[in-house]
Amino acid sequence: MNINNLFFHINYCNMRQADEPWKYKAKLTRTLDHHELLLATGGKGSVVIANRRYNAQAGDIFYIPEHTMQSIESDFNDPLYFISVHFCYANVFFSDNNWSVKSEARELPLSSIKKVENIYQINHLFWRLVSGWYAKLPGYEFSSKALLQQLIFELYTNEKVENRNYSVELKIESVIKYMHENIDKKLTLSQLADMVNLSPTYLSRAFKERTGYSIIYFFNKLKIDKSKELIIDGDRKIKEVAKELGFGDEFYFSRLFKKIEGVSPLDFYSNNVHEF
Amino acid sequence: MNINNLFFHINYCNMRQADEPWKYKAKLTRTLDHHELLLATGGKGSVVIANRRYNAQAGDIFYIPEHTMQSIESDFNDPLYFISVHFCYANVFFSDNNWSVKSEARELPLSSIKKVENIYQINHLFWRLVSGWYAKLPGYEFSSKALLQQLIFELYTNEKVENRNYSVELKIESVIKYMHENIDKKLTLSQLADMVNLSPTYLSRAFKERTGYSIIYFFNKLKIDKSKELIIDGDRKIKEVAKELGFGDEFYFSRLFKKIEGVSPLDFYSNNVHEF
Repeated sequence: MNINNLFFHINYCNMRQADEPWKYKAKLTRTLDHHELLLATGGKGSVVIANRRYNAQAGDIFYIPEHTMQSIESDFNDPLYFISVHFCYANVFFSDNNWSVKSEARELPLSSIKKVENIYQINHLFWRLVSGWYAKLPGYEFSSKALLQQLIFELYTNEKVENRNYSVELKIESVIKYMHENIDKKLTLSQLADMVNLSPTYLSRAFKERTGYSIIYFFNKLKIDKSKELIIDGDRKIKEVAKELGFGDEFYFSRLFKKIEGVSPLDFYSNNVHEF
Repeated sequence: MNINNLFFHINYCNMRQADEPWKYKAKLTRTLDHHELLLATGGKGSVVIANRRYNAQAGDIFYIPEHTMQSIESDFNDPLYFISVHFCYANVFFSDNNWSVKSEARELPLSSIKKVENIYQINHLFWRLVSGWYAKLPGYEFSSKALLQQLIFELYTNEKVENRNYSVELKIESVIKYMHENIDKKLTLSQLADMVNLSPTYLSRAFKERTGYSIIYFFNKLKIDKSKELIIDGDRKIKEVAKELGFGDEFYFSRLFKKIEGVSPLDFYSNNVHEF
């Protein structure tokens, strides 16, 4: 799932505090039509997600996708309390100066439980999000949304660092760095794989997994991003830009640009820039 | 303009550094079909936005709306350098479980120039955004977007603090706080105006300006937000919730809920919750 074009809508936030246990049922089993992130803040209990039971301790973050059976069970004498955010999302696309939106059925790539007791930053983001939502000061919807996105990004990044092969992460970063330094060249998958001592197949799969893009598409995207800057701010001709980015052929460059951006580079220029 | 539902698309970022002045024209006059935020980082020059000339100094942030004549002029001996982000946005709506998107022609409510030399946080956000965009490490599009939203929010908030009557800001915050504490009551505009020693007309206008909502709509929205939490997580009956939030009449509550959320509270419940 590519999370880059997601637009988030916050349904509401929840803050179950220690001082009002009588307000809540000890056990609530159901599915919801929206997603939920929940940070346990104290007390005792457990969270069941899709038939798997997790003990909940202060500092645990649970991700419960939509349409997933969930049960929050609280200890009678020491009730569980938590903060949570209920949200949904859709994919928004911008291509050829047109916007479109499509609902997104897939789950976020997050694990069901994450222990973040020691990760001050993630806890802090979660608190800022929920308390900002509650305080409802001017601009709270906009800032809550930015905080939710950041929270999801941090959880996502943190997961990758925890669960995966750290040396592969570093190798992918060095591949990207190498692409930057050789943006005017042609690079092949096997060349890049050799450089970091991985098999082309392995590098290819790992790269796609981490970035959401195939390695060659990513390198082309990098060139196209750079070309936008050169075309608009460098005020350079398409032909020059194509050459500068290592395309032998200006027409191939134009086709690629159109494939990635939805418009040709010439139209991109004339849509965006009106000189005087 | 209500900025709450904006979805941002980053066209590209730009980083004009001191070591490559020959790359750029000394003067570039044009209009663009997207918005631009620019942070001057050094050198000398000026930025002309819609026929008004501003001297550019390190730490100045310029907002150049789309379709606006702009000219960036650089000193020959001490060229201006800067970082910038080019972006566009649309309004995304979620109502009655349906998504829709509509392009947004209005400008962001930001001033053309803002001096932020001493505001470390805003500068830092801008740098994180642009350098993250350039490094293109996994997830950069998602995180750049979250950072852009935060940057815009900070600029927006900062502007309000700077340009406006600080005591009015505080009064609006205390009105919101009072609403929270009296969420189970009926409140009138004149009652709230009395409380903060403002005329109803003045409070009404100022409130709308800061929050994007009329004062009564905002109070209703506050109640509806709370009701969503009570309906879903408190597992309470619609009738009870209406009473708890100070609606004499459950049907009035339902109509209001539908007006704000696009669905009735009963449908909201059954759309969202499937109990077992």
